[in-house]
Amino acid sequence: MRRVRYSVAMSLDGYISGPNGEADWIVMDPDIDFVAMFMQFDTFLIGRKTFEAMNSAASRSSVKTYVFSRTLTKAKGATLSDDPAGVVQRLKAEEGKDIWLFGGGELFRSVLELGLVDRVEVAIIPVLLGGGRPLLPQTQARSKLKLAAHRHYPKSGIVMLEYDVRAER
Amino acid sequence: MRRVRYSVAMSLDGYISGPNGEADWIVMDPDIDFVAMFMQFDTFLIGRKTFEAMNSAASRSSVKTYVFSRTLTKAKGATLSDDPAGVVQRLKAEEGKDIWLFGGGELFRSVLELGLVDRVEVAIIPVLLGGGRPLLPQTQARSKLKLAAHRHYPKSGIVMLEYDVRAER
Repeated sequence: MRRVRYSVAMSLDGYISGPNGEADWIVMDPDIDFVAMFMQFDTFLIGRKTFEAMNSAASRSSVKTYVFSRTLTKAKGATLSDDPAGVVQRLKAEEGKDIWLFGGGELFRSVLELGLVDRVEVAIIPVLLGGGRPLLPQTQARSKLKLAAHRHYPKSGIVMLEYDVRAER
Repeated sequence: MRRVRYSVAMSLDGYISGPNGEADWIVMDPDIDFVAMFMQFDTFLIGRKTFEAMNSAASRSSVKTYVFSRTLTKAKGATLSDDPAGVVQRLKAEEGKDIWLFGGGELFRSVLELGLVDRVEVAIIPVLLGGGRPLLPQTQARSKLKLAAHRHYPKSGIVMLEYDVRAER
């Protein structure tokens, strides 16, 4: 079955963007094959704030994009929904490539609390931000993980950690 | 010169203890050699809250322990100080083994902002806590890191990441 994968870059202290939405701390590494990574997905799930940070337009026409919001009335290039549970359950039952839960943390929290996230994949950038938007906002639910893969990129010092979310809590 | 090393266990979402101080999520791994690790240090730096979580007593007589607080009047088995800058600068100028900045996050922030932390060593436990005491509380100072070592413990899924703090900010 296709998986829902939350795949993001994170500072060592657990932020996916800076206090003002900054992404300038996210270093690149020539050995990370972004094209190969994108090719594993055909569907994106995006929260409202992250979508607005993308100038409110989904551009990759070969990928089906869902934007989740209770307030937006349109989402250019994307399907708008206020029902993560219904959409994600339906998508997972369909055939297809994996589903990229692109962010942000609030959408991750919603889908995690529904028990619908299969994987958490974090590229740890060698920096301490001291503040920003967290990987996972406050939640009562503790989630056990199982390390499934790990890789170190020596040119940048990025460490990629991939975890399966364990069904039992 | 001896180094100040902040060495802690952390959840993937950046917490060093749970919302109520829980440490029950910190799994052990038989391949982590704690004795060899302790042998690298002869001095501990401990913040007030962490000291109180240790029942307000430092027990290892072979290790010199400093507790930092503006409010405590005594610290059993330890030297009490309200001056991290003075103590840490003096200790670093002395001969000795490395200095373990044991925690918590607030003491780490203070010493980091002073530019006196040499290393950040994090054992990433495969869990999402969803809340708790952060690795690094809010600070304006962004700190660049350089990955110095990394190791994966397959039995537990713990990943140990060791970073040098880069002098330039």
